[in-house]
Amino acid sequence: MRPLTQTLSYQDAVRIIMDAAVPMARTERVAIGAAHGRVVAEDVRAAGDVPPFDRAAMDGYAVIAADTAGAGVHSPKTLTCVDRVFTGQVPARGVGPGECIEIATGAPLPAGADAVVMVEDTARDGPAVRVLNAVQPRQHVGRRGADLTTGQTVVRAAQLLTPSRVGALAATGIAIVNVYARPTVAILSTGNEIAEPGAPLAPGQIYDINRYTLEGVVAAHGGTAVVLPAAGDSLEDLGRALEAARRCDIVVFSGGSSVGDRDLMLDALQRHGEVRFHGIAVKPGKPTLFGSIGATPVFGMPGYPTSCLSNAYMLLLPFLRRVARLPPWAPRTVDLPLARRVASATGRHQFYTVRIEDGRAEPAFKASGDITSMAHADGYIEIPAQTDVVEAGTMVTVTLFQ
Amino acid sequence: MRPLTQTLSYQDAVRIIMDAAVPMARTERVAIGAAHGRVVAEDVRAAGDVPPFDRAAMDGYAVIAADTAGAGVHSPKTLTCVDRVFTGQVPARGVGPGECIEIATGAPLPAGADAVVMVEDTARDGPAVRVLNAVQPRQHVGRRGADLTTGQTVVRAAQLLTPSRVGALAATGIAIVNVYARPTVAILSTGNEIAEPGAPLAPGQIYDINRYTLEGVVAAHGGTAVVLPAAGDSLEDLGRALEAARRCDIVVFSGGSSVGDRDLMLDALQRHGEVRFHGIAVKPGKPTLFGSIGATPVFGMPGYPTSCLSNAYMLLLPFLRRVARLPPWAPRTVDLPLARRVASATGRHQFYTVRIEDGRAEPAFKASGDITSMAHADGYIEIPAQTDVVEAGTMVTVTLFQ
Repeated sequence: MRPLTQTLSYQDAVRIIMDAAVPMARTERVAIGAAHGRVVAEDVRAAGDVPPFDRAAMDGYAVIAADTAGAGVHSPKTLTCVDRVFTGQVPARGVGPGECIEIATGAPLPAGADAVVMVEDTARDGPAVRVLNAVQPRQHVGRRGADLTTGQTVVRAAQLLTPSRVGALAATGIAIVNVYARPTVAILSTGNEIAEPGAPLAPGQIYDINRYTLEGVVAAHGGTAVVLPAAGDSLEDLGRALEAARRCDIVVFSGGSSVGDRDLMLDALQRHGEVRFHGIAVKPGKPTLFGSIGATPVFGMPGYPTSCLSNAYMLLLPFLRRVARLPPWAPRTVDLPLARRVASATGRHQFYTVRIEDGRAEPAFKASGDITSMAHADGYIEIPAQTDVVEAGTMVTVTLFQ
Repeated sequence: MRPLTQTLSYQDAVRIIMDAAVPMARTERVAIGAAHGRVVAEDVRAAGDVPPFDRAAMDGYAVIAADTAGAGVHSPKTLTCVDRVFTGQVPARGVGPGECIEIATGAPLPAGADAVVMVEDTARDGPAVRVLNAVQPRQHVGRRGADLTTGQTVVRAAQLLTPSRVGALAATGIAIVNVYARPTVAILSTGNEIAEPGAPLAPGQIYDINRYTLEGVVAAHGGTAVVLPAAGDSLEDLGRALEAARRCDIVVFSGGSSVGDRDLMLDALQRHGEVRFHGIAVKPGKPTLFGSIGATPVFGMPGYPTSCLSNAYMLLLPFLRRVARLPPWAPRTVDLPLARRVASATGRHQFYTVRIEDGRAEPAFKASGDITSMAHADGYIEIPAQTDVVEAGTMVTVTLFQ
């Protein structure tokens, strides 16, 4: 057995990991309806004007503005309605002096007209339309190209496709957009004791938890999880699994990162790739490994489910978002008084889970091996390495899991 | 044409809409790997203990704690190592007085042993293991059932499945979970002018935008979008479309909600269902319709893309999340000084889009018909109905779109 004597500070580990994050270069073309939340890979310019024609911005009458000069409730100007044009139609004729054409919002402005009088500002009697309020040229007209003009940038490279940006692509008639590919993340549970939920356990076995928690974090933060079959505890098995996994953009395995004789991942990674560090001064999550196989970054998470998931949030999440070119994650936080004293004389940066009860943060951490340390908590507080005790009543910032 | 004279306040509209939100009753069974972000439909209890056996919590030696009494660096107790047990194995023999068994983290504790001495607290010479630190009974032992005991609640009905809760289900061997079904949301664009992106426009046509923006909001907030073919501007077409759409849990159409002669959605909804209100004192988004067909709620959004999407955020989003049983949405906000004066003498509650530039909120709103009012903005500020002007330099709260 090889004790883990030297550990990096949390801050140093984050720095090393983030420096190793290479934003995706690979791109792919997707239908705009499937592009929500994706990151655009190139500037997209409008191929035409939006809207493609001058159109009515209100329901009312297309007019020559000069014909309405001086119109008011007590001095209406009367025009002759000579046609009507609905949305989706092409006007059959134009507007001449003294004339108007009834028009619906969004319909193309007839030739000759330069303004629209709102229906609310008119009174009608057969073909005679009394205009009760003068309009200026262009009033209530949506001008061709007012939204986007030909050649104008619709969305910029590296922008996140929010609903309105997808809408802007649609507005210009673009059906397919070039986005950065989602990084593929190989998820690999290791350990002879691992069994899949749904089948009974043999003696000595436990169910795989990390595969599911990692999958959830990966999918929520821009990655595509590729779950590989659990690997056994031999150098050959692990080596084979690593070689298969390296075809993904990121490899995350769990288990086998501690110091037991059969915690062979360190050896396997040294043999097949390169180890950047082993051991971080955090709790939970100390026996964590980071390195690479070729150009593929490799995270070795502890097998303990709370250690593994805590590290997934603290280390993998920011790394993955940078690789996926997503903006940094801003989790919800809430400031509350701590319900009970917490001792943390570990010399490690601690992520201490809490439940919110009666407006206070109630310590919820049990042990790194217990998934309920997190599943029965609402979030966590951070206790820096140099802080030994947080007294009851101290205001703490709770980072929420949801 | 029928002018829209009476409008509800924004607050009243939200109240009516939220009162009409009926949380989903329909449930479905999904694999836990597909259950992230879903809402559990029933309390789930552990069918067995987790962990299912006493196990080593550290790498080291399984011992009888009493054998280590008084052990220290200068007064080691020497035990005889009689076996080793790895994770996933069943111990072949037990620990007798004066004996120990080498054990890996997670391996089942051999019979007779009641504690584990960490490898760091030992020195080994062949079968002789010197214990340099005494342990208490149960020390460094993960007790059977310490995480979850048989019958204990793993997740509660109505809880959101965060990664750790999915992990807790996996821990107890549960492969399939009963969750509330995602509400299906029919999305229906109306208007003779609507064309699909990807094909050229005929004269008078514009591309469908709302279908895509609505789809994005629905998918991000717990719904399953069901996009229906765009419907034309006739009572028959709209009636047929509404009857098809009502099979979904929620119907959202856009266009046809204003006051033109061909804005027939009001008539169609009155004929086929019930109108709760028509018109809200908001900008953008005034000509908005809300009602129902049978038990199915119906939102009639304005055709203008910024009006439609603004209402999707302000009205549909909270409604959908309540129906989907998701917690209320907490968007990110940032407080910034307003870069330029904004006038809003509308008597309407205004959602005014802004860009963040040089640490200030720069007004970005163009017109309700322009999708770039939102696509080229970072978020929005709210200007209450009774506020006419917000001066440059005023601190405003910007709600971010991402």
